Amino acid sequence: MKKSLEAGIGKSALQLVLASSHEIEEAEARVTESGFHYCLGKTGSMDMQKVVSAIETAAKRHQIIDEKLYREMHALYHAILEALEGVTRGQVLLGDVMRTVGLRFSVVRGMPYENEAEGEWIAVALYGTIGAPIKGLEHETTGLGINHI
Amino acid sequence: MKKSLEAGIGKSALQLVLASSHEIEEAEARVTESGFHYCLGKTGSMDMQKVVSAIETAAKRHQIIDEKLYREMHALYHAILEALEGVTRGQVLLGDVMRTVGLRFSVVRGMPYENEAEGEWIAVALYGTIGAPIKGLEHETTGLGINHI
Amino acid sequence: MKKSLEAGIGKSALQLVLASSHEIEEAEARVTESGFHYCLGKTGSMDMQKVVSAIETAAKRHQIIDEKLYREMHALYHAILEALEGVTRGQVLLGDVMRTVGLRFSVVRGMPYENEAEGEWIAVALYGTIGAPIKGLEHETTGLGINHI
Amino acid sequence: MKKSLEAGIGKSALQLVLASSHEIEEAEARVTESGFHYCLGKTGSMDMQKVVSAIETAAKRHQIIDEKLYREMHALYHAILEALEGVTRGQVLLGDVMRTVGLRFSVVRGMPYENEAEGEWIAVALYGTIGAPIKGLEHETTGLGINHI
Amino acid sequence: MKKSLEAGIGKSALQLVLASSHEIEEAEARVTESGFHYCLGKTGSMDMQKVVSAIETAAKRHQIIDEKLYREMHALYHAILEALEGVTRGQVLLGDVMRTVGLRFSVVRGMPYENEAEGEWIAVALYGTIGAPIKGLEHETTGLGINHI
Amino acid sequence: MKKSLEAGIGKSALQLVLASSHEIEEAEARVTESGFHYCLGKTGSMDMQKVVSAIETAAKRHQIIDEKLYREMHALYHAILEALEGVTRGQVLLGDVMRTVGLRFSVVRGMPYENEAEGEWIAVALYGTIGAPIKGLEHETTGLGINHI
Repeated sequence: MKKSLEAGIGKSALQLVLASSHEIEEAEARVTESGFHYCLGKTGSMDMQKVVSAIETAAKRHQIIDEKLYREMHALYHAILEALEGVTRGQVLLGDVMRTVGLRFSVVRGMPYENEAEGEWIAVALYGTIGAPIKGLEHETTGLGINHI
Repeated sequence: MKKSLEAGIGKSALQLVLASSHEIEEAEARVTESGFHYCLGKTGSMDMQKVVSAIETAAKRHQIIDEKLYREMHALYHAILEALEGVTRGQVLLGDVMRTVGLRFSVVRGMPYENEAEGEWIAVALYGTIGAPIKGLEHETTGLGINHI
Repeated sequence: MKKSLEAGIGKSALQLVLASSHEIEEAEARVTESGFHYCLGKTGSMDMQKVVSAIETAAKRHQIIDEKLYREMHALYHAILEALEGVTRGQVLLGDVMRTVGLRFSVVRGMPYENEAEGEWIAVALYGTIGAPIKGLEHETTGLGINHI
Repeated sequence: MKKSLEAGIGKSALQLVLASSHEIEEAEARVTESGFHYCLGKTGSMDMQKVVSAIETAAKRHQIIDEKLYREMHALYHAILEALEGVTRGQVLLGDVMRTVGLRFSVVRGMPYENEAEGEWIAVALYGTIGAPIKGLEHETTGLGINHI
Repeated sequence: MKKSLEAGIGKSALQLVLASSHEIEEAEARVTESGFHYCLGKTGSMDMQKVVSAIETAAKRHQIIDEKLYREMHALYHAILEALEGVTRGQVLLGDVMRTVGLRFSVVRGMPYENEAEGEWIAVALYGTIGAPIKGLEHETTGLGINHI
Repeated sequence: MKKSLEAGIGKSALQLVLASSHEIEEAEARVTESGFHYCLGKTGSMDMQKVVSAIETAAKRHQIIDEKLYREMHALYHAILEALEGVTRGQVLLGDVMRTVGLRFSVVRGMPYENEAEGEWIAVALYGTIGAPIKGLEHETTGLGINHI
């Protein structure tokens, strides 16, 4: 059985990227209370590769995942791609279709299910803006990817 | 120019679907303060058509959109489809690929940009679970679609 | 080398579905002058299978393709699917995402290239409306698929 | 209610890109009679970004859209992307999958519905060739995107 | 490091579905020698849900996965969906676009990497025919999905 | 009617790319016995264009297809793209989403159906690894595309 959505790993990841400056401490405290590990960062680019790379690098550097284990990298990678589907809504393309993103990202790892045998899972949340490469010509966008690890 | 993301129409829509029972009043107050109109609901199905229909019906009934104007229905429809891309992450299919969703949804309408000439926009946010049609075999999912109206 | 686009098989197929009642005779004459065979029809449904089936049936009945040869059916099938990508623009879904189409279709077969060794090709053109299953809540849509046969 | 398809904004856009040199004047006259504004252009590239950019630039320069309003740019952008789905039929990619396009494009703006409250809409039509980056190894392709503005 | 592709889990899964009647024993022996567990089956339908369900049911019944653990079901599910992308090549749809499949499937579980910390992975291979719902109007198709478990 | 799957053109193409060094001669002999022509090669890149190009070049150089006939290039091109759908499983992207492939490929041409009127068909099979651009962080992948020629 899953723990209540209240403490969901996906919700935790989303609250971290949605939190404004005065809310971030509370959001971080809640994630830690749930027993989750996490990292937070920012990335902006017309180049999708840089977005993927920024999230992977942050997750490795903060030891959310063990970069020497492919199974952990594989779990993270697919969670990132799934989150990018939400951000791009159709074709996972940025500069190729003349658009750019400015995103906050979080990577959260932990045990979201009551049954301990379910083990660890990973959540990647993205929130920010997508639009033309001209300041202001943009709207908000979000994405969430979840995978077992 | 856009207003600060703090008061973003997408963030407002997301906070409405993420709010737990004791947070919902505050979330609703914030959306109203931003001058936005909104409605909230729940839908769960293996049938994508029912999900689309539940959101459209709620938006019409709460007069978030004027169902007699195709331009409003068209704006809402594409925002719903974009939100579903985030929920399904790849193929906008549910029962056909043996999965089901249980979702909270919000539809928010208002003027998110400082420049009044930018007019009204609509945001559709979804949050809940996706998984096998067996209780507990599911994880969280989210999606956000935004359109001018 | 290709013949001029003036007499293109794709353009011929598109002009047949775009022609209004007083233009249709001229459009048909032009297609015949180009040495192409064709059929014309109408189909409307929320069920994609019925749309595919209607086009296949018309092409068989008018002997545009030989239904006993899989290679001809295969060429037609992929041309239909490609035309439907243009009509649906993203996910090849109708009723599942709560929308319906009303389409005119044409299937044109012939030799569009000057080099006779290029042999026969097939074009499927679609034009009509797509929208909510409520009269008037719809806009125009088109699609074109071309394949060697 | 929509005006007859005869004078449809999508049909107008398609007729502009399909018109041969001796038909173009008549096509332009018909579009103007319908009370629509439009621009016409050509673009060819293996680089999708250049195709998107060429259409956006033409629409701004001919004042079909107001480039200072994001809502207008947003409406145009999604109409372009939808037209490109018809052109690429599956994955919105050109050079990445070793193919190139040579396209005529039109952008048409106006009020296509009898009910004035439906306001303005925009149509983007594309017609030309797609194929290998070798002259002659190509066939015709088309796409149409329509959006409220 | 990965073991040689010779003994790859994906290759094992593919060889099981490709083996003809006189090759199957050898293929099964090789898979077992590699220390992998597997099951084999057949499924045919215009209904994608039945295809997904047939593979899931076989994997549960042969205890390739533990159906009480969502993480195992989740790993299997995504491997199935990825294999279906190879089978359908574009849109994960069967009957909706008027086509049917007749497939052999294998599900293989084991440790394909030399580093034991990489743990267990799962491979789903599909091979058979796809085509019109008329005998003989079909060609071969295959797909392979691999996931950590 | 199709010949038995035993001698299928797709199976032949797959066996060529799956064969280990001591199996390749037997696999090649079987393909030749079936009356098929084929070529074999390797390609590895983060750049999808190079993968497509490597396969096209090999097929031309070994005269599996006649590069002067667009209908043959068109048949090959779509078979390659379909095989790449199996390899990429979702979005036909490599470096853009930070991944790379190392693939063996085969292109097989011949008459796979008993009815001679079905004429020639082409199969493209791919097998190898996909993963992060770091040695070892990869798993197996495959794809098969089949087209009439």
